Amino acid sequence: MPRFLNRRSQKIGMRPGSLVSAENTGLGAPVISVMDYGPDHCHERDHVNISELKQVPPPDAVAWVNVIGVHDADIMAEIGQIFGVHPLTLEDIMNTGHRPKCEDFDSYLFITLKMLTFNTTACVIESEQVSLIVTNNCVITFQERPGDVFDAIRDRVRSGKGRVTKMKTDYLAYALIDAIVDNYFLILETIGDHIETLEADLLLKADYKAMKMVHHFKRELLFMRKAVWPLRDLINGTQRKEAELITDETVMYYRDIYDHSIQVIDTLEVYRDMIAGIQDVYLSSTGNRLNEIMKVLTLFAAIFIPLTFIAGIYGMNFDNMPELRWKWGYFGVLGVMVSLAAGMFFFFKKKKWL
Amino acid sequence: MPRFLNRRSQKIGMRPGSLVSAENTGLGAPVISVMDYGPDHCHERDHVNISELKQVPPPDAVAWVNVIGVHDADIMAEIGQIFGVHPLTLEDIMNTGHRPKCEDFDSYLFITLKMLTFNTTACVIESEQVSLIVTNNCVITFQERPGDVFDAIRDRVRSGKGRVTKMKTDYLAYALIDAIVDNYFLILETIGDHIETLEADLLLKADYKAMKMVHHFKRELLFMRKAVWPLRDLINGTQRKEAELITDETVMYYRDIYDHSIQVIDTLEVYRDMIAGIQDVYLSSTGNRLNEIMKVLTLFAAIFIPLTFIAGIYGMNFDNMPELRWKWGYFGVLGVMVSLAAGMFFFFKKKKWL
Amino acid sequence: MPRFLNRRSQKIGMRPGSLVSAENTGLGAPVISVMDYGPDHCHERDHVNISELKQVPPPDAVAWVNVIGVHDADIMAEIGQIFGVHPLTLEDIMNTGHRPKCEDFDSYLFITLKMLTFNTTACVIESEQVSLIVTNNCVITFQERPGDVFDAIRDRVRSGKGRVTKMKTDYLAYALIDAIVDNYFLILETIGDHIETLEADLLLKADYKAMKMVHHFKRELLFMRKAVWPLRDLINGTQRKEAELITDETVMYYRDIYDHSIQVIDTLEVYRDMIAGIQDVYLSSTGNRLNEIMKVLTLFAAIFIPLTFIAGIYGMNFDNMPELRWKWGYFGVLGVMVSLAAGMFFFFKKKKWL
Amino acid sequence: MPRFLNRRSQKIGMRPGSLVSAENTGLGAPVISVMDYGPDHCHERDHVNISELKQVPPPDAVAWVNVIGVHDADIMAEIGQIFGVHPLTLEDIMNTGHRPKCEDFDSYLFITLKMLTFNTTACVIESEQVSLIVTNNCVITFQERPGDVFDAIRDRVRSGKGRVTKMKTDYLAYALIDAIVDNYFLILETIGDHIETLEADLLLKADYKAMKMVHHFKRELLFMRKAVWPLRDLINGTQRKEAELITDETVMYYRDIYDHSIQVIDTLEVYRDMIAGIQDVYLSSTGNRLNEIMKVLTLFAAIFIPLTFIAGIYGMNFDNMPELRWKWGYFGVLGVMVSLAAGMFFFFKKKKWL
Amino acid sequence: MPRFLNRRSQKIGMRPGSLVSAENTGLGAPVISVMDYGPDHCHERDHVNISELKQVPPPDAVAWVNVIGVHDADIMAEIGQIFGVHPLTLEDIMNTGHRPKCEDFDSYLFITLKMLTFNTTACVIESEQVSLIVTNNCVITFQERPGDVFDAIRDRVRSGKGRVTKMKTDYLAYALIDAIVDNYFLILETIGDHIETLEADLLLKADYKAMKMVHHFKRELLFMRKAVWPLRDLINGTQRKEAELITDETVMYYRDIYDHSIQVIDTLEVYRDMIAGIQDVYLSSTGNRLNEIMKVLTLFAAIFIPLTFIAGIYGMNFDNMPELRWKWGYFGVLGVMVSLAAGMFFFFKKKKWL
Repeated sequence: MPRFLNRRSQKIGMRPGSLVSAENTGLGAPVISVMDYGPDHCHERDHVNISELKQVPPPDAVAWVNVIGVHDADIMAEIGQIFGVHPLTLEDIMNTGHRPKCEDFDSYLFITLKMLTFNTTACVIESEQVSLIVTNNCVITFQERPGDVFDAIRDRVRSGKGRVTKMKTDYLAYALIDAIVDNYFLILETIGDHIETLEADLLLKADYKAMKMVHHFKRELLFMRKAVWPLRDLINGTQRKEAELITDETVMYYRDIYDHSIQVIDTLEVYRDMIAGIQDVYLSSTGNRLNEIMKVLTLFAAIFIPLTFIAGIYGMNFDNMPELRWKWGYFGVLGVMVSLAAGMFFFFKKKKWL
Repeated sequence: MPRFLNRRSQKIGMRPGSLVSAENTGLGAPVISVMDYGPDHCHERDHVNISELKQVPPPDAVAWVNVIGVHDADIMAEIGQIFGVHPLTLEDIMNTGHRPKCEDFDSYLFITLKMLTFNTTACVIESEQVSLIVTNNCVITFQERPGDVFDAIRDRVRSGKGRVTKMKTDYLAYALIDAIVDNYFLILETIGDHIETLEADLLLKADYKAMKMVHHFKRELLFMRKAVWPLRDLINGTQRKEAELITDETVMYYRDIYDHSIQVIDTLEVYRDMIAGIQDVYLSSTGNRLNEIMKVLTLFAAIFIPLTFIAGIYGMNFDNMPELRWKWGYFGVLGVMVSLAAGMFFFFKKKKWL
Repeated sequence: MPRFLNRRSQKIGMRPGSLVSAENTGLGAPVISVMDYGPDHCHERDHVNISELKQVPPPDAVAWVNVIGVHDADIMAEIGQIFGVHPLTLEDIMNTGHRPKCEDFDSYLFITLKMLTFNTTACVIESEQVSLIVTNNCVITFQERPGDVFDAIRDRVRSGKGRVTKMKTDYLAYALIDAIVDNYFLILETIGDHIETLEADLLLKADYKAMKMVHHFKRELLFMRKAVWPLRDLINGTQRKEAELITDETVMYYRDIYDHSIQVIDTLEVYRDMIAGIQDVYLSSTGNRLNEIMKVLTLFAAIFIPLTFIAGIYGMNFDNMPELRWKWGYFGVLGVMVSLAAGMFFFFKKKKWL
Repeated sequence: MPRFLNRRSQKIGMRPGSLVSAENTGLGAPVISVMDYGPDHCHERDHVNISELKQVPPPDAVAWVNVIGVHDADIMAEIGQIFGVHPLTLEDIMNTGHRPKCEDFDSYLFITLKMLTFNTTACVIESEQVSLIVTNNCVITFQERPGDVFDAIRDRVRSGKGRVTKMKTDYLAYALIDAIVDNYFLILETIGDHIETLEADLLLKADYKAMKMVHHFKRELLFMRKAVWPLRDLINGTQRKEAELITDETVMYYRDIYDHSIQVIDTLEVYRDMIAGIQDVYLSSTGNRLNEIMKVLTLFAAIFIPLTFIAGIYGMNFDNMPELRWKWGYFGVLGVMVSLAAGMFFFFKKKKWL
Repeated sequence: MPRFLNRRSQKIGMRPGSLVSAENTGLGAPVISVMDYGPDHCHERDHVNISELKQVPPPDAVAWVNVIGVHDADIMAEIGQIFGVHPLTLEDIMNTGHRPKCEDFDSYLFITLKMLTFNTTACVIESEQVSLIVTNNCVITFQERPGDVFDAIRDRVRSGKGRVTKMKTDYLAYALIDAIVDNYFLILETIGDHIETLEADLLLKADYKAMKMVHHFKRELLFMRKAVWPLRDLINGTQRKEAELITDETVMYYRDIYDHSIQVIDTLEVYRDMIAGIQDVYLSSTGNRLNEIMKVLTLFAAIFIPLTFIAGIYGMNFDNMPELRWKWGYFGVLGVMVSLAAGMFFFFKKKKWL
């Protein structure tokens, strides 16, 4: 299955905005949990029933609805109805191969991006789509699978400390995106460690296995780049005048994520350049190695082939070969051979082939 | 015949907007079919005569005129006259190698793009130009050959379900373009499957045949890119203020196609990068392989050539070769040979050539 | 002589707008011909004397003055005086290596571009600079040499058919530019034919001569690109608000040329990418071939070198070599040789070197 | 540890603006020094206690507070409180891997950039983050380690000469940034010296060690580019209308830094291109060398292998080999061998393989 | 000394606008000459004393002050004071490695650019910085060394012919810049000649020395590009609204230089592409050559190695080798050898290795 493009085949021919349950996901029913909190309270409910979502949260509270599993079309449609979500938005949430983007609807802001994790056993980056719907009193997050990078935020909300409980949904959305982007740095560090180690190895010895690993990480960076590159537009999208949900107070925080995105992209580009450099070194190195090997071979061949030929001549069985009868013939030939070998040796020395 | 550029030679020197029937297309007369539908009715007519097209559809109905075959200049001119189409537009429709674009005329919107299909037997992408003329009560589609990706839309229109029957021509046009763009994903998936399989193969073993296939898909991606790249401008063209035919209600849908186009282009770029990576791996791999082979050759040559030379010396037939008479001469020489071979072996071992 | 840059040396140090007759052009005196036509008449005069140009054409007529040969400074200056052309414009017309551009002067529009023709015997693109001065009742075209791509337009003017005789100078200018751009497609088709054929050849067999041809066409495309690339800016220049000579009616036609220019540029880029791909295939192919050859060589060497060495040992003439006296010594050695060869063979087979 | 990305791992999950002391920096407590000066006085204090910072400087004086060591979160928070610095700014100062940028807060301008030094023993560029907070009467600089490039500015302030003592904080900030950017040229000169020397060496002889050094400097340039590239945006940031702290009088000086930044970036790009050129030369050179070596080997092999074969034939021990009995057989064979060798030699000569 | 970056080391730590005399320039005192002219007069003075510069030229005259030698800080400061030049401008003039730019000060326009000359003996481009200060009645030019490309302009001024004596300082500045840019074409022609010749040579035979020359010119183009690339911005700078010194009448002339700059840059890019193409051809060619050589070697080895082995077998001295006793054994073996050689030959022929 192509990893760089999520299957959309089953959608072909459907009417736009129509929702199709993903086949064979191997995942159970979606799990919904709700945290609603204000400056002085925090209620958490897990495994919430959809109908309970209709209860309006108190006016000064912020509700964070977390939906794990986006493969069930019926449940998605129901959620969509409760929160007044446009069918195209629901379609985008369920299409887990969507490009990160930020779209401003009248009543909500829709943000979709990739949560990346580095699988250290297989040495590959794994991607999970996270979508956020931000209304003025509620943030709904959609994840594909259990497990995320939001635990620290949950702790902060529970403890009631920090800025998050004093501010509105735009700040919560910022905190969630920031957690995802911060995690990108962790992945870059891990890959960076590997690449710099491989480079050091390859400068010592051109090892094809190390080269394969370099190629492997190049692919992972390509994969990561596809997920990270659209972030700039996304963050810019949140800073447009029309995005009224983002207050002036939080804009500075979004600018901070923007800086981080740029830094991730910069670092990705630097690693790309480094890998290109490593490939050049590897090529130079194998080329150099081949020359070294060929020089040795040529040296041996060029010195011994003529000598063997001379020995061959005096191994011939002609009746009339006067040299064979000479007393010092053998030693003379040995002398000639040594001189020839020495001559060749110095000739090559002079030609810098040794 | 160059596949990347449709022949326009016969047009050279013609006055602009002049229509020339394509030669030798091997296609019969164009086939026209009409669907007109409203929220509560749907009439379908196949093999419609051109003169019948003049009948005005009822005010609240939408007419979809599908023309298969654009090679006949006379018929095209007649259609153009009925619907008030500018000669330059007709010329663009008949020039099947046109670049995808969107042009806003006073009374209609003209859109031309490529419908791509993947021929699985020849493993090539096939391209067919589809042109749309969108007036305020009629969408005329022009195709080169029978067979398209619009059957699902026809079904939706017939069933009267879905949004399409409740909305105007701009939505029908959107649905048609969306069907074409959705089909691009299908092709990308197929090619992606192939590329990722080939990459896995080439990482195991540098196989020139697999490399040729990689090159083949690189070309197909190039072909696809030429068709897809202008889509961004096309969709942007539909969203300009002046395009009054596109209502505010449908603009969001066109924005959705825009997102999909960007995603197709992104994926094309990623595949290009992947193929470049595969080529690098192949080069590294063949370079590495050559070094391996040369090392073996050099090893054999460097060890056996001196030994053969020594054997050659004692194969000479000089009368006076004292060593030949020594009792243990033969075994001494064998001993020297074994030591020499071992010495060379350890020398190469130390030099990391083994 | 560098082909990619027309000599300007003799101009160094001249005052701007000063006109210098080109040296040694081998061309005779410039030839001027005039066509003036309206909706219902058409007068043609060849070999017109410069003084005759001063006659004002009738108010509703359009005059097309065609000047062949721009190397004579005196004649150019005279023409410039008659039509009120700025000295810098005249300098640009005479500098036949000028970059295509469109400049808007108060009383006229100055357009210069390249007319390309494909010399099929030498397989090279030949370039000729065509400059247009468009006033409100006259189009003056300047060509370097006799022979152009405007015959079809002349026929249309003569026949009085088509739009050209009913419209003003801006349409005539459009028709001329369109004829030049249309001709680019012809060249692209020819080169495309060659490139696709060469690619097919090179996929079958890495042939250095075919590779040289690919390089040749790469250069020709480079040459063409230099001529075609500035066309976009040129056409955009005609569509600026200030260019009052281009009426609203003809703007659409210029937009059409713009589309064609983009298509030519697109196709040029695609061919560049294809050639890059062909080069990669060639490199892979020669690399693969080298490996194949080396494998055969190594196989022969690795199998026969040890065998020859064994034969060499028993060719030595030591008195005391017990094996030589054994009855089955010879056959034993033969057996050892066969086993060794078989062993090597299977070893290489296992290592996938065969 | 990856050098191209500073560790941020310990920050993951922290609330934005939270400050974490860096672990194991091996650095002692931060050292604060203050210089306050006006047109006619200059007071310097080293090892200042934080509480002393609260004393307001006299109205016409400028205070330069220099903090060495940004790893202690408590001290940073205290400083932040005294000068009214936003927590996000403090976080950026402590995150020593931050991308150079300029941010305009209401009461201060925040600038962070990299101070680079070239470690001549290890031949690597070392980077230290310098952050500036510019208020209307105070410039606070933060450095990671002792040692900087500001001594010349300190001398100028002390001496009371030059423009710096007559102007406000914006000029001091400019002088500091200028000192950092000027130092970039010093590094570029050193690297440029090395690269041009290496290029000259590699044109004489393809030496793999020199190639490794080229690769090394390529990496250093990559490292430098990451630090320098964002400077353009940074300086542009200072020139925006809203940055009221930068007076019209100093804007010209900032424009001067901008020019220098562009020049540094230009030179970096030129060195990149030069290194790419050197790599091409190295590849051509090793390829050429390999061909040279192979030609020699082939020559030897092609001449001596047939000769050795002939000698081998007449070394066979068949009873019935008439040639062996011929009187001049031996000399005939020698003649044949010489002719053959000469023939091969001239054949290769003619084929330009010698 | 790095040629691509002029030393600025001695400036490090100096206060901005401080002027430092260049060390060891080997140049004498700066030489100042003045030409003041109007429509009907022209006074020339060489070796003018600085104090004489203070005399105000007559109101309708234009003064051209040419300063040769910018290494003496005192003289520069004096000139600066007389003409009211900003210290930063003086610093830029003295820093001879400055990037070409145009800066608009209140009372003057400052332009700095590179005058290039091609040293035909060393085959390198030499660069000299020329700076212009344009006030409303005076143009001051600064050159590094005697010798320039302005003689033709001097002649035009002296003769009183041409437009230059009738117009103001902006036209003189234009004429000077135009002379410098025109000279770029001369250099491009020379380099173009060399490159096209080298390409033709390399297509015939892959010669490493020619390749080195190609690399050499690549570097020179890189050097030229660094000088020429910023010209576009420079000329655009003169056309900004605020640059009041450039009158509407002369703007058209500056637009002409702009066109020429673009053409120089275009041609530089084309040459870069051509050189890249030549490198590809060289690589293909050496690769092809290596394959040719290896094929010959392999052929010889593969045919003769088995034959030599057979000869070796029958050179063994076993007592019991029945074949040796056969009457036709020798001839039989010869026959086998010939058949084997022929078989191998046809095998290789069939495999297309010959």
